[in-house]
Amino acid sequence: MRMIDIIEKKKLGQTLSKAELDFFIEGYTAGTIPDYQAAALCMAIRLMGMDSRETADLTMAMAASGDQSDLRSIPGIKVDKHSTGGVGDKTTLVVGPMVASCGVPVAKMSGRGLGHTGGTLDKLESIPGFRINLPTEDFFHIVNTVGISLIGQTGNLAPADKKLYALRDVTATVDSIPLIASSIMSKKLASGADAIVLDVKCGSGAFMKTEEDAQALAEEMVAIGQHAGRNTIALITNMDRPLGRAIGNSLEVIEAIETLKQNGPTDFTELCVELAANMLLLAKKGYLEDCRAMAQQTLRDGSALRKFREMVSAQGGDPAVTEDYSIFPQASIITELPSPRSGFLSHMETQTCGLAAMVLGAGRATKEDSIDHAAGIVLSVKPGDRVEQGQTLATLYCNSPAAVPQAEQLLLGAFQITDRTADTQPLLYRRVEAK
Amino acid sequence: MRMIDIIEKKKLGQTLSKAELDFFIEGYTAGTIPDYQAAALCMAIRLMGMDSRETADLTMAMAASGDQSDLRSIPGIKVDKHSTGGVGDKTTLVVGPMVASCGVPVAKMSGRGLGHTGGTLDKLESIPGFRINLPTEDFFHIVNTVGISLIGQTGNLAPADKKLYALRDVTATVDSIPLIASSIMSKKLASGADAIVLDVKCGSGAFMKTEEDAQALAEEMVAIGQHAGRNTIALITNMDRPLGRAIGNSLEVIEAIETLKQNGPTDFTELCVELAANMLLLAKKGYLEDCRAMAQQTLRDGSALRKFREMVSAQGGDPAVTEDYSIFPQASIITELPSPRSGFLSHMETQTCGLAAMVLGAGRATKEDSIDHAAGIVLSVKPGDRVEQGQTLATLYCNSPAAVPQAEQLLLGAFQITDRTADTQPLLYRRVEAK
Repeated sequence: MRMIDIIEKKKLGQTLSKAELDFFIEGYTAGTIPDYQAAALCMAIRLMGMDSRETADLTMAMAASGDQSDLRSIPGIKVDKHSTGGVGDKTTLVVGPMVASCGVPVAKMSGRGLGHTGGTLDKLESIPGFRINLPTEDFFHIVNTVGISLIGQTGNLAPADKKLYALRDVTATVDSIPLIASSIMSKKLASGADAIVLDVKCGSGAFMKTEEDAQALAEEMVAIGQHAGRNTIALITNMDRPLGRAIGNSLEVIEAIETLKQNGPTDFTELCVELAANMLLLAKKGYLEDCRAMAQQTLRDGSALRKFREMVSAQGGDPAVTEDYSIFPQASIITELPSPRSGFLSHMETQTCGLAAMVLGAGRATKEDSIDHAAGIVLSVKPGDRVEQGQTLATLYCNSPAAVPQAEQLLLGAFQITDRTADTQPLLYRRVEAK
Repeated sequence: MRMIDIIEKKKLGQTLSKAELDFFIEGYTAGTIPDYQAAALCMAIRLMGMDSRETADLTMAMAASGDQSDLRSIPGIKVDKHSTGGVGDKTTLVVGPMVASCGVPVAKMSGRGLGHTGGTLDKLESIPGFRINLPTEDFFHIVNTVGISLIGQTGNLAPADKKLYALRDVTATVDSIPLIASSIMSKKLASGADAIVLDVKCGSGAFMKTEEDAQALAEEMVAIGQHAGRNTIALITNMDRPLGRAIGNSLEVIEAIETLKQNGPTDFTELCVELAANMLLLAKKGYLEDCRAMAQQTLRDGSALRKFREMVSAQGGDPAVTEDYSIFPQASIITELPSPRSGFLSHMETQTCGLAAMVLGAGRATKEDSIDHAAGIVLSVKPGDRVEQGQTLATLYCNSPAAVPQAEQLLLGAFQITDRTADTQPLLYRRVEAK
């Protein structure tokens, strides 16, 4: 088999066999296939496409390119959750405990990620003492006793994806639905869960700007799950506005705790219930409607909050944070942003809100940047709200005075205040299941 | 300017500016743009295309990437000729002397090339003593006194093309009309001629298999010439059968000499007249019809033959070869291939005929292979001819007995003998001029 023949086939729009995709991924991971041939193939895939069988085979080849977690020593159906990433997305902190308190084991490895705020790991690390690096046996032990553990990725998961993603990033081949889908799903497959719920974000704060693209990505990933024998459901959700009100690491953990206490923002609470319900469905806990009720019940009866506290404690964190938010790192500067005019908040440029949080210190621009766990933004208004001139639009938290003016300017540019109410958009656009 | 933005534009089907194409070629030649980005761009160009302005700008950037010949010290309009390559193509050996004997200077640099037979240089080297490496001043002196000199490429012409071609060869991006056209024309532009006649071969023995592809390539190259201010004409000619009867280096030189003596094969003679006439036209020697008559006259009055002899002599070769073919290297094995049946020769798989000549030693499979100047094939029949069982189809010349059975087998497979006459195809399909 020769790489050039594989490129040739895809260039002509033909479908690649499993053997050809395996050959490519094995050779590329091993370094016997050079970057320039991989780049030519990626561009051919970007422009000629791949069908769902090819995409699934590529994904499975990438999942097999490194270590693969073996979760078999944890009894029960393990359901993973993945979000394509958005501004203010702290769902894992709420959904994990909800699901776990229904008796479904949550053994979740998360990443750090670049962007507006840190990843789930960075949020958890804002809890004093919380350890995200645990030996595998401790991780399994906590899942088997507490029912949930959230840790950092261990092992060398899907190295082919890492290498290929770095190449796509410099060859203008990132924006390919089959390549995006296989990149995400290869890591999920290697993580070892039996079933997967995907939260595909859509809108101005998401990688997928349009509902069509989000739908295509969701369908592709659900198809991969089906080919790989992992039940997969995708929810396409609104990221045309930040999720909830808090953007920033400790601020988001506090919002998650408030949500577990039934005081969370409506949109965020609703999304957590939907995600948890679908995870419970995949764990075969009942029909979707029953699962939704079960999920809601974990908030009402406090069982999800208790589960959160148990997990924090098991991983070395101080469970008192759920009652005393002063335990979190504190911002030295807290400043309110007043509205320049009266009207209706018709749109928030979500990416820009995220950028403002990053400027305040909540996120990383490069891998080497450090994060200020206390920094971030809490929004006082959401799209559709009436605002008066001088009313607080948002509260900014940070420890670097120099960052405030730039963050304020970004935020002011992100808020669109008009004379009439805009139509409100739904939170959940669509639900995609295997056909 | 960033290479990734250039790739992105082409991926989206947008046109690249001259500045962007210059940036790419300069960076790629200098090594600051890596192979993987160039590969991604080549695939995007292959799949999204380039318009003729882009193709011309790319070509001029490649022509400017290295040395450029300056032919200004040779008075008159210098017209170059280029063939896209075919089996039995020895036109330069005849056309050059024809044009030169009409007073148009021929200062031609040729390549060696891989394939069925050597390039023009290898053919000339089969003449004992003939020197193809001359100092520039000697080259110019011969052109200015004799009127014609044929030498090997000097200097570092279009290094960007060399590098890019090597990359395209391993990334399945050879078959792009804009990239093929710019590759050929970049070297022609750098060679310094004022005008160019292109012989675009079409058929089973050519790189372009269909008339449509040949037409597209011809139009693209003529447009490049126009953009670059070099008058260019392309002839699309039949390569569905070998040109003339001889395939192999000294055998082709002998056929060229016979053609200069008016004893050449009809198809080959006709093509030489057409090419020479178009070169004379571009040298502003008159209307095409007059130029055709002038070209024919150089054969009838022996002036082209004399010019050939003068050139051979000026470049150190033995001019007696035109009278005594025993001066050429001789084959120790000469064997005739009889026809297995009676009928009409309806088709010759031209590529296979070339392969048979290569097997006998006439060509190179890799750059390192040496050439047997005496080896090759002389065809006794051409498509359309009636053949009887046992009649000689071809005569094979070589010095390695082991090669004969394989060459015979290839040739037998290449000849299609049927019960009815096939339609004969034209020699010249089309002539493409600037619009």
